[in-house]
Amino acid sequence: MSISEFGLIQRYFSSQTISNPVNRLGIGDDCALMSIPPGYELAITTDTMVENVHFFSGTDPKWLGHKLLAVNLSDLAAMGAEPVSVTLALTLPEVNEDWLKGFSEGFLNLAKQFSVDLIGGDTTSGPLTLTVQALGMVPEGQAVKRSTAKPGDLIFVTGTLGDAGLGLKINTGYMCDSPETALKQFYQPNPRVKEGLAIRAYANSCIDLSDGIAADLNHILEQSDVGARLDWDRLPLSREVKAYINTTGDWVLPLSAGDDYELCFTVSPDRIDCIDIECTQVGVVEQGSGLRIQRGGVIENIEVKGFEHFS
Amino acid sequence: MSISEFGLIQRYFSSQTISNPVNRLGIGDDCALMSIPPGYELAITTDTMVENVHFFSGTDPKWLGHKLLAVNLSDLAAMGAEPVSVTLALTLPEVNEDWLKGFSEGFLNLAKQFSVDLIGGDTTSGPLTLTVQALGMVPEGQAVKRSTAKPGDLIFVTGTLGDAGLGLKINTGYMCDSPETALKQFYQPNPRVKEGLAIRAYANSCIDLSDGIAADLNHILEQSDVGARLDWDRLPLSREVKAYINTTGDWVLPLSAGDDYELCFTVSPDRIDCIDIECTQVGVVEQGSGLRIQRGGVIENIEVKGFEHFS
Repeated sequence: MSISEFGLIQRYFSSQTISNPVNRLGIGDDCALMSIPPGYELAITTDTMVENVHFFSGTDPKWLGHKLLAVNLSDLAAMGAEPVSVTLALTLPEVNEDWLKGFSEGFLNLAKQFSVDLIGGDTTSGPLTLTVQALGMVPEGQAVKRSTAKPGDLIFVTGTLGDAGLGLKINTGYMCDSPETALKQFYQPNPRVKEGLAIRAYANSCIDLSDGIAADLNHILEQSDVGARLDWDRLPLSREVKAYINTTGDWVLPLSAGDDYELCFTVSPDRIDCIDIECTQVGVVEQGSGLRIQRGGVIENIEVKGFEHFS
Repeated sequence: MSISEFGLIQRYFSSQTISNPVNRLGIGDDCALMSIPPGYELAITTDTMVENVHFFSGTDPKWLGHKLLAVNLSDLAAMGAEPVSVTLALTLPEVNEDWLKGFSEGFLNLAKQFSVDLIGGDTTSGPLTLTVQALGMVPEGQAVKRSTAKPGDLIFVTGTLGDAGLGLKINTGYMCDSPETALKQFYQPNPRVKEGLAIRAYANSCIDLSDGIAADLNHILEQSDVGARLDWDRLPLSREVKAYINTTGDWVLPLSAGDDYELCFTVSPDRIDCIDIECTQVGVVEQGSGLRIQRGGVIENIEVKGFEHFS
């Protein structure tokens, strides 16, 4: 079929009404307009997903729409910012109405769940490439950065680690008795928005886990000029990930596998009583540099690389 | 060669220091942070450029970097917003250092010219796809929209029309005695930021010309619920475009060719004395709907489609 670019956007996305009063003008003009209340900073992030790089060709478009928004909301969560609005740049090889229907449903359902307005975008033809920019609000000076971890801070993570990585392995042939949890984490991660807003009050630093805790925690360490020790035996693992490790011996998975989109944050020991979310302590920030893993009583320096493009 | 994603971004983009005090945190964390002064709204726009759709494979990366930013700044200009910051989502098939050097130079030179900070981004591997999101500031309630043209308004454009379209024709084989102006307009358009800020004081409506004046003006007409008459004989044309029309008879080019990135705006007749930029009156807004073209004394209803993806 052949409909115009404008008709395409109109049909699947422009029907959205603006729900957040911060957003003053949505889709349809040269720009959208927002009015940020005094005392708040705007947090901005962008993430792209490319077919056959970030997702398999043929992935359910509903899951894609969900995940594309989720990974962006996860970045806002990691700063302690409340999501407010997003723009969507869609590059599509063709106008496939079934695909658009599923994609917009997955995207807009998650947006609705977090009261996020779609305020603008661009639709172009080309190889399937999806870019979101997400905008959030955080009280001035209260954003939780990567660069402010302190020696002595305890390291926490939300949820469990390695499930999305296991989901990827299931997709590429690993046989798992109960694959549902891992596949759900891989295809439809849950952005930790609520948790990000909560820890803002007591966390010294935070990052979201997109490339695996070893690589992501390392960003905190480098930017904060500190080191850390992770206690492998404390890592929160699902029954399925434990079974996978028992079967394969691949204990590195929960350290190096990406796409979990849990939060990793550090809290000063004198503030751990403030913690009001479900999370697990997995290590401690130390003076110096580098990441050490303690496993079964043995401590070793480790370089566990996350997924890196072009490397 | 093989360097990590992070190293790649670092080398070509992260060296940028923040110059605008509105930008509180730049590249390197989960989000960038901005602090918008009270009394201002934030204007947000996004535009994507795809290889072999928006630009020829092999285009000088310096021109690409320039144009990608220019088309986004042009959207801010069309709202009367002052550009402040941008994010850049780069999808690259490979790490080509020469390409990155040229691209970043073209992009960052234009950013510097308009005091725009690059505050965030994402780099992924995949088919060459470039997305920018641009953020600007406009005093509350003063953004110039598409939906507020009034019957009786005079229609103006900046610059000349059809030069980028001629540049495209030169690229695909048309022989032109002096192709420089047309090619420059096609490859390195100049966003009308200064003009957009100036007309904010007196324009009723505005749009930037990305798809040709017929299609773009039509957006104003539809959203303002008005019609218009364009006077073809008043269209500002370069010597080269005039020669092209004389040679080929293709008088539709300046109406339908895209990529000029001039501003088209409407001004109430009692405010035309306020106009303080170089521009040309090309028509008038009328009651009713639709676009009519007056050419050599003949008026005709016309449907001149701009470039539309998927159509």
